[in-house]
Amino acid sequence: MDTDDEDSSQSEQAFKKMSVPPWSKQITLRALMTSFILSLIFSFIVCKLNFTTGILPSFNVAAGFMGFAALKSYTTLLNKVGLLKQPFTRQENTVVQTCVVASSGIAFSSGVGSYLLAMSPYVASQVSGGNTPINTKNISVGWIIGFLFVVSFVGLFSIVPLRKLMILKYKLTYPSGTATALLINSLHTPKGAKLAKRQVAMLFKSFCGSFLFAAYQWVFTAADGCGFNSFPAFGLQALKRKFYFDFSTSYIGVGMICPYMVSISLLLGAIISWGILWPWIEDKKGIWYSEDLPATSLYGMQGYRVFAAIAMMLGDGLYHCISMLLQVACDLRKQHMKNNDQSFSVNPEGVDPNSKVDYDSQRRIEYFLKDQIPTWVACTGYVVLAIISIITVSIIFPQLKWYHILVAYLIAPVLAFCNAYGCGLTDWSLASNYGKISIMIFSSWVGLSNGGIVGGLASCGVMMSIVATASDLMQDFKTGYLTLASPRTMFFSQALGTTMGCLMTPTMFWFFQKAYTLGDPEGSYPAPYAQVYRGIALLGAKGFDSLPNHCLELAIILFFIAVLINIVQDLLMRYETKYKIYRFVPNPMCLAIPFYLGGYFTIDMCVGSLILYAWEKKNKQKAKDYAPAVASGLMCGDSLWSVPAGMLSLAGATPPICMKFLSANANQKVDAFLNGSN
Amino acid sequence: MDTDDEDSSQSEQAFKKMSVPPWSKQITLRALMTSFILSLIFSFIVCKLNFTTGILPSFNVAAGFMGFAALKSYTTLLNKVGLLKQPFTRQENTVVQTCVVASSGIAFSSGVGSYLLAMSPYVASQVSGGNTPINTKNISVGWIIGFLFVVSFVGLFSIVPLRKLMILKYKLTYPSGTATALLINSLHTPKGAKLAKRQVAMLFKSFCGSFLFAAYQWVFTAADGCGFNSFPAFGLQALKRKFYFDFSTSYIGVGMICPYMVSISLLLGAIISWGILWPWIEDKKGIWYSEDLPATSLYGMQGYRVFAAIAMMLGDGLYHCISMLLQVACDLRKQHMKNNDQSFSVNPEGVDPNSKVDYDSQRRIEYFLKDQIPTWVACTGYVVLAIISIITVSIIFPQLKWYHILVAYLIAPVLAFCNAYGCGLTDWSLASNYGKISIMIFSSWVGLSNGGIVGGLASCGVMMSIVATASDLMQDFKTGYLTLASPRTMFFSQALGTTMGCLMTPTMFWFFQKAYTLGDPEGSYPAPYAQVYRGIALLGAKGFDSLPNHCLELAIILFFIAVLINIVQDLLMRYETKYKIYRFVPNPMCLAIPFYLGGYFTIDMCVGSLILYAWEKKNKQKAKDYAPAVASGLMCGDSLWSVPAGMLSLAGATPPICMKFLSANANQKVDAFLNGSN
Repeated sequence: MDTDDEDSSQSEQAFKKMSVPPWSKQITLRALMTSFILSLIFSFIVCKLNFTTGILPSFNVAAGFMGFAALKSYTTLLNKVGLLKQPFTRQENTVVQTCVVASSGIAFSSGVGSYLLAMSPYVASQVSGGNTPINTKNISVGWIIGFLFVVSFVGLFSIVPLRKLMILKYKLTYPSGTATALLINSLHTPKGAKLAKRQVAMLFKSFCGSFLFAAYQWVFTAADGCGFNSFPAFGLQALKRKFYFDFSTSYIGVGMICPYMVSISLLLGAIISWGILWPWIEDKKGIWYSEDLPATSLYGMQGYRVFAAIAMMLGDGLYHCISMLLQVACDLRKQHMKNNDQSFSVNPEGVDPNSKVDYDSQRRIEYFLKDQIPTWVACTGYVVLAIISIITVSIIFPQLKWYHILVAYLIAPVLAFCNAYGCGLTDWSLASNYGKISIMIFSSWVGLSNGGIVGGLASCGVMMSIVATASDLMQDFKTGYLTLASPRTMFFSQALGTTMGCLMTPTMFWFFQKAYTLGDPEGSYPAPYAQVYRGIALLGAKGFDSLPNHCLELAIILFFIAVLINIVQDLLMRYETKYKIYRFVPNPMCLAIPFYLGGYFTIDMCVGSLILYAWEKKNKQKAKDYAPAVASGLMCGDSLWSVPAGMLSLAGATPPICMKFLSANANQKVDAFLNGSN
Repeated sequence: MDTDDEDSSQSEQAFKKMSVPPWSKQITLRALMTSFILSLIFSFIVCKLNFTTGILPSFNVAAGFMGFAALKSYTTLLNKVGLLKQPFTRQENTVVQTCVVASSGIAFSSGVGSYLLAMSPYVASQVSGGNTPINTKNISVGWIIGFLFVVSFVGLFSIVPLRKLMILKYKLTYPSGTATALLINSLHTPKGAKLAKRQVAMLFKSFCGSFLFAAYQWVFTAADGCGFNSFPAFGLQALKRKFYFDFSTSYIGVGMICPYMVSISLLLGAIISWGILWPWIEDKKGIWYSEDLPATSLYGMQGYRVFAAIAMMLGDGLYHCISMLLQVACDLRKQHMKNNDQSFSVNPEGVDPNSKVDYDSQRRIEYFLKDQIPTWVACTGYVVLAIISIITVSIIFPQLKWYHILVAYLIAPVLAFCNAYGCGLTDWSLASNYGKISIMIFSSWVGLSNGGIVGGLASCGVMMSIVATASDLMQDFKTGYLTLASPRTMFFSQALGTTMGCLMTPTMFWFFQKAYTLGDPEGSYPAPYAQVYRGIALLGAKGFDSLPNHCLELAIILFFIAVLINIVQDLLMRYETKYKIYRFVPNPMCLAIPFYLGGYFTIDMCVGSLILYAWEKKNKQKAKDYAPAVASGLMCGDSLWSVPAGMLSLAGATPPICMKFLSANANQKVDAFLNGSN
């Protein structure tokens, strides 16, 4: 098992002279205010990404960094005017980071871009199958807030008792959490502060550039199909097949943060699906599927797209779930044997006292064990909240009976443990996969006539909240462990962040829904996962009848291809260590996403990857230091422009110009028309 | 008087061991081939710039550099395969440079974008005044070649006898010529060669980028008003007032080469005219000028634009001519007095033997005086060619009688001397100013009914060819002097270059005329000077009757403003030496150019200037080393795309896509129309 201590070798020496404030002083008012503002920003970004493609990079590092930038500017300012009373500590920084991650995590696990939106009559009308009143639910902010409050806090309690096991005993890596902690630690050393200053400047520049560019783009978007975001960079034919560059700096930023293989897999998926498979299936129009169907019907072309994506995602998800379960079981067995063989006595805290503990670990363990959260508190909390949740959820969704939800809460902690453990090893949270599987199970259990679709989707919410929270928060505990923040501080910041998230996400959802049409496949906010999740629920409730001709065969093939790719990668990873070919195996989940959406955002992401690649070629150190800052700026600037844009749209203002792309032929007609009408 | 020897201090030491080949060996076959190819490229670029805005940067340095790049690549290749017999010398480089400058000089002085095009019935039909058969002449390649041959070589002979006077006696600077020579010298030293290699790489990159971008832009230009070159970067209102960014990398390159003040003056001129003056005059529509006039009528809005520009250019030109004459007279008087006072005997070659001559100068003078061109040869040549020219020109243009042309040939050498002398001091050739004044004089002398417009324009050709050639070639002699190229070599390369130019320019003119409409104010190739020159001729032939209401007042005011600006600048230059405020006085000629054209190309040039500024801020040395290479690449790439674009246009191929910009309102109508027609 990896240990983190190599990376941050003796870093606690640098902080020897700095005292660590008690836990109640770690959560300061200024930290809360900063958390609130950053939570707003990050929740907004997550919502926007949810509604556009559903691809979310990890925000841990960005949140830690921006928390530092905000609080450091504030305290430096106060210090200059002589009003600073309490210095800015690492622990405060961690509080901000944890709070922001918790609240923006809700923006994802709340399913406003996936399972909740999938219940709406608008999405139901597109999926054409199971579009009955009992299988839809009108979206309203009220019940969403209620629902989120009851399901999100359960996750919090489910994970608390596991923290010592995961972090002290198993010494799991939690790559993102560790990276964030290292960042926070380095930011608070004098050398780090100097670099941070320049990083902040870069972030600010790219933020402004990205914001202004987004505003500028807006001017040319007088109507649908106008503007930079429908720029046919590779010609009009490619535009029809969704290959174009949409000038979205958000996704350029995402491409700069994601591993190269993610961008490449996405591009590959887009080429395979929209370049090869779909044109081939479209040729069968009238043979495989009826010609008169509307473009969005799941019995037509759209069905192939959605179910192909679902099959591949399910194949990938199932493989990971099973392999993770096996790995966890194996690992735990090994641990157990080792402990037995060597006859080490494990002390009550789960720490092996005989191991040679260096200064860093000593100090970290000391602070990690200082403020306890008793296990009985956590367990009681979980049970009480689960009972409340069972009652509330079955009121909100009459389609789900109390025993359905009870079963969900009995399985959830096991899956939460698996996910937190797996995430600690690989940094890859499988929450949405567990969610998808739970949709399949519960929607088939409830049955179509009893509202199986809404039931399945609601169960997904219950499951995903617990599972996603588990891995997110364990990452934060790891960060807290490495920055000497008290676990109690972490718990309270997580609770606060969760509260913020439960209030912010529905508000933003409301905002987007008022200003735009969410879930329109041709619009700016297609929210692809809404249709995918509804498709899964339909599959569960109705069985394979809901598929168009030959779609099942296609789905089965893709399902096994996804499994196969994973097996090949695992085998390569284990047995072919010379050239590390496994690094070049595409990721099946990434392959599947563009099946539904097309290639446009993959072009953006590849542009981002290319920029990063060129930068690394030119100056590796600089790229490493500044690329994340630039990427964050790009994402934030572009996303934040959505706020004024949305408000303008609410106010009924339209942009003044339409940048239109016409074929030479159509242009002739239009010119003749315009000359005639003048 | 400045001397160049300070700049190139003792540089001849570096070449001590290299032998200088005899003059007949300096003009090699490979140098001629390279000259031919580069002449094609540069003539093309000059033609394109002529037809778009008429703004031409100095190409001396670029020609020297690209000649080096081409020949060095060729000889290095030959050397690698062991076939190199004669090493690549500085003198060969100078031959190429001279030849290219001479031939591309013809592309300017031939007036295909100004006085020749102004004769065409198409331009005449726009100017609406003097559009009678005797005042137009159909453009045909045949007579243009004949005309160019008889007028261009006269200039060559007029200047030869003056070379020793200008370069050895007066030691004039000729900044461009000196810069080119320093570049060639430095390229041929080992250190220079290393830098050159990197410069070539930069040039190649920016060339490819610019070419590909131009090709990419083409795809979106299915019809007029489509594509990047009508991108309303500042909104549709600004587009109507010709303020937009037209994505022309050529002019970005030009902006990177021109002094900052040129770009700023152009922008200022555009703002003053299209932003303030024209909207104000347009308000007087129906009062100052009739409402029913076509948009291009010189009696309407267009008249104000053209005559305002003419007035400012004439004011500037006249000021410079007079001040130059005074300066030359003053300078010569001083020289004379100095020589008399100090009783120095001036030897027959015009070199003062008593002055302390360093090694560099010694060697340079030696080679400059080695191969003589006797003065009697030059004088006989001039007289014989002038007689041939008088006969031929009066046959081509019956509007001009033999005595008109004779007078022109009597005045021309004086003006040629002034221009060559002034250019040596300031690097600013006033050829086109002398041309404009000659139009005024001759068109009024011939008279409108006798074809005064064509007569005046033709006289401009006679005059400009001599005057422009004089300054260009003297620059080249200076370059030759500093690179030890024999004057005889220089003379022959100039003659060869002139021959190439006389054949190439008409061919390219033919190509552009076939592929596009030249001189259309709304088209891609407005060739603004054609209308301006015709306007001047009309003014000369018809007097001030040809102006719309209040236009004369406006013209007089602008004329005096131009003179005033020049006076202010000269006074500041002389008396205010502390802050050098004179550097911030705008250039009246540059102010006047956008009066007619609008601001679009000034935006490009300002972008170029901004890039250069930012680059210099970041790394001054790198900017100095690479900016000219990048700028050359940008200009060449964009211009060269005109060749395939022109051929595609000749073949009748249209680009596939139209990028159109519609107001939100118009877009709604178009969308309704398109949906209806489907």
